[in-house]
Amino acid sequence: MTLHLNLFIIDTGHHEASWRLPESDPLSHLDIAYHQRIAQIAERAKFDSVFLADSPAQFGDPGRRPSGRIEPTILLTALAAVTSRIGLIATASTTYNEPFNLARRFSSLDHVSGGRAGWNIVTTAGDDAARNFGLDAQPAHVQRYERAAEFVEVSKKLWDSWEDDAIVADKASGVHALKDKVHPINHVGRFFSVQGPLNAPRSPQGHPLLVQAGSSEDGKDFAAKHAEAVFTAQQTLEDAIAFYQDVKRRAVAFGRDPDHVKILPGLVPVIGSTEAEALAAEEELDRLIAPEYARANLAKLLKVPAERLDLDRPLPDDLPTEEEIEGAKSRYTLIVELARRENLTVRQLIGRLGGGRGHKTFAGTPEQVADTIEHWYRSGAADGFNIMPAVLPSGLEVFADQVLPILRARGLFRTEYTGTTLREHYGLPRPANQFELVAV
Amino acid sequence: MTLHLNLFIIDTGHHEASWRLPESDPLSHLDIAYHQRIAQIAERAKFDSVFLADSPAQFGDPGRRPSGRIEPTILLTALAAVTSRIGLIATASTTYNEPFNLARRFSSLDHVSGGRAGWNIVTTAGDDAARNFGLDAQPAHVQRYERAAEFVEVSKKLWDSWEDDAIVADKASGVHALKDKVHPINHVGRFFSVQGPLNAPRSPQGHPLLVQAGSSEDGKDFAAKHAEAVFTAQQTLEDAIAFYQDVKRRAVAFGRDPDHVKILPGLVPVIGSTEAEALAAEEELDRLIAPEYARANLAKLLKVPAERLDLDRPLPDDLPTEEEIEGAKSRYTLIVELARRENLTVRQLIGRLGGGRGHKTFAGTPEQVADTIEHWYRSGAADGFNIMPAVLPSGLEVFADQVLPILRARGLFRTEYTGTTLREHYGLPRPANQFELVAV
Repeated sequence: MTLHLNLFIIDTGHHEASWRLPESDPLSHLDIAYHQRIAQIAERAKFDSVFLADSPAQFGDPGRRPSGRIEPTILLTALAAVTSRIGLIATASTTYNEPFNLARRFSSLDHVSGGRAGWNIVTTAGDDAARNFGLDAQPAHVQRYERAAEFVEVSKKLWDSWEDDAIVADKASGVHALKDKVHPINHVGRFFSVQGPLNAPRSPQGHPLLVQAGSSEDGKDFAAKHAEAVFTAQQTLEDAIAFYQDVKRRAVAFGRDPDHVKILPGLVPVIGSTEAEALAAEEELDRLIAPEYARANLAKLLKVPAERLDLDRPLPDDLPTEEEIEGAKSRYTLIVELARRENLTVRQLIGRLGGGRGHKTFAGTPEQVADTIEHWYRSGAADGFNIMPAVLPSGLEVFADQVLPILRARGLFRTEYTGTTLREHYGLPRPANQFELVAV
Repeated sequence: MTLHLNLFIIDTGHHEASWRLPESDPLSHLDIAYHQRIAQIAERAKFDSVFLADSPAQFGDPGRRPSGRIEPTILLTALAAVTSRIGLIATASTTYNEPFNLARRFSSLDHVSGGRAGWNIVTTAGDDAARNFGLDAQPAHVQRYERAAEFVEVSKKLWDSWEDDAIVADKASGVHALKDKVHPINHVGRFFSVQGPLNAPRSPQGHPLLVQAGSSEDGKDFAAKHAEAVFTAQQTLEDAIAFYQDVKRRAVAFGRDPDHVKILPGLVPVIGSTEAEALAAEEELDRLIAPEYARANLAKLLKVPAERLDLDRPLPDDLPTEEEIEGAKSRYTLIVELARRENLTVRQLIGRLGGGRGHKTFAGTPEQVADTIEHWYRSGAADGFNIMPAVLPSGLEVFADQVLPILRARGLFRTEYTGTTLREHYGLPRPANQFELVAV
């Protein structure tokens, strides 16, 4: 068993100020060739997958960093055209889509890519998104997760609605597909009524790989029930181990094989040839964060007026509790606990979040980064990592050229792909078809 | 002024039995490389655009012909990756999408393709689609068109929500985009409430090219108000001229330049080196139509039980009127009028529809096809054509190699692209930004 590595792609890098570096092209977020180049570097490095975050809303001040992006299933299709093995994971919202449309898009991406599609299932926090879809405010957290569960159930039915051997394409008899192997799903539920079948034959992977990233109680249950890979933000090894054990235990309680839920904490590496060089690079990035944007953004996450956050003081004592938060609950708690644990000022907290936004940042030499990865992996904190370079493409190139050889020398990461689909990269089975099971 | 030509791409060709020919690959509908090859042939031939039809439902018996396709905006993204000039037009429904999601997808396709996206706006007839989205039956025709009008209005606001010069990407000051050039749209209407802005900068064409294909009274008004290209099914030159004049007149009444609404009737050419050879090829295709599928399909369109359609008799006298049809009204009337005018039996009608499905079929030599095209064009029946080869890719290759040289020799079609965007190919202006106009 070896590590699984996913590359998080976001314009000039995960650090919010990365676009301000001399090396960065601040218009890269709209440049397809740039994204294709990054995907090709990641494929040469044998990453399991690349991943795009998403929300159907313009978030925050467009001054802060490159914003306004290509819709992920479209961008990943453009990446599929120039790659052949690497997995392609898109974030999409169950709150602001219809299952027929979205299940179909992921089926299409899986067909187009020859079985490399993954869906990061999100319920989408925030009122800005809600207001783009006729609502005044986001639906309650618990309701979003109930809808998400039914959404995934409907999607699986749609992906299974064509049996794998439905198409016979018999020119002589003039029968293209067998009608009795193409099933209406006739789903009637609390949120959705969907007749089906999907208007697409079953895709190479059967279902796209299902990914989830919420770490609230609702989120962990959802992940344990449905997800095959979990992207998570963990600041400490101790928390990461607890999260890992918690999700695996829940998966077993739902009757699942815990090996079929891969836990991948985010890691934001800032790599230098010496530790001092790495720390200086990190400091330079943090220095470029514009505090007025970051403070407004933090205030929005914490549901307090921006003027209550004094840059040179700790967070106010009277913040809301996680129960009062209807948005990204686990992210909220992580940020507040980080600030309290390390007694950070708002300015210091902004620095930490500007780089990691809740994910673990690590500045060090290639050897130190490899050591951290190995330590977390061997400690039972992770099945792999969601690598989020602070600066792209350079942070990916350094990781591929200097960290991966160390991990390979230690037998921790593949030297070649052994499969062709994303499920094969992650060691996950192709799902059985629920309609074939019924027929037997 | 010269002709505009669009290529209609559908698996092995427009004729429903084309997949049964020895030359056809009956699995091509899921083969991206096949579609990429066709788009490249069309681009070498300097077609204005390629076009994909769509409905969010599995339509009819999957035995009949290849069905279950790649979602069009995804398939066109895969085509954009291997072409650089040809326009890319996807059909998408205003009844079964949300404006924010769909406007965003077309913006993305326009960004990805460097300004080559077009949207064929449809309201989607049929109860099967409705039942995939929580409804028991399709909304009434007039309501679908009212929703479509507001949907387009919202989409245009979203596409304009970033001014063209919003991005400054000033590394020194740390300002990426100017907040006061990114506008919430705050749309509140009968069908939609959308806050905006779109989470994407304005795309190369400003708006994708807007295409429409309905020919009912509602459809013609919609086209005259919003469409920049109209795909239409016309059987006779006389009807085509009347339609052309009608839509252009309505466009003028709405205050538009009639040259900014291009009328493109569908043409299904079956080409042979002699007329007899062409007719034999058409007959062979019609012979391969399985009447049991085609009769069921026709019965569905006409809203009568299949057993009332006797293959060897004319259509029953007591069919519903167009007013009673809530689906594809103009297609219904066209089919009934064709059968009555030419006194066709159901079997003969099925043959005509299997090839053309309401579009004009024309079997002949390259010279005869070019003559027909020129005659319709010079008679004021068309600004160009939606070319729907009965068999693909061979029907496209013959058209490109043998018909286009004749049209070029007559000065009727381009020898090179003069622009890079779809709007430039069609001679249409880049739309002004409504938010910039307000600000002036």
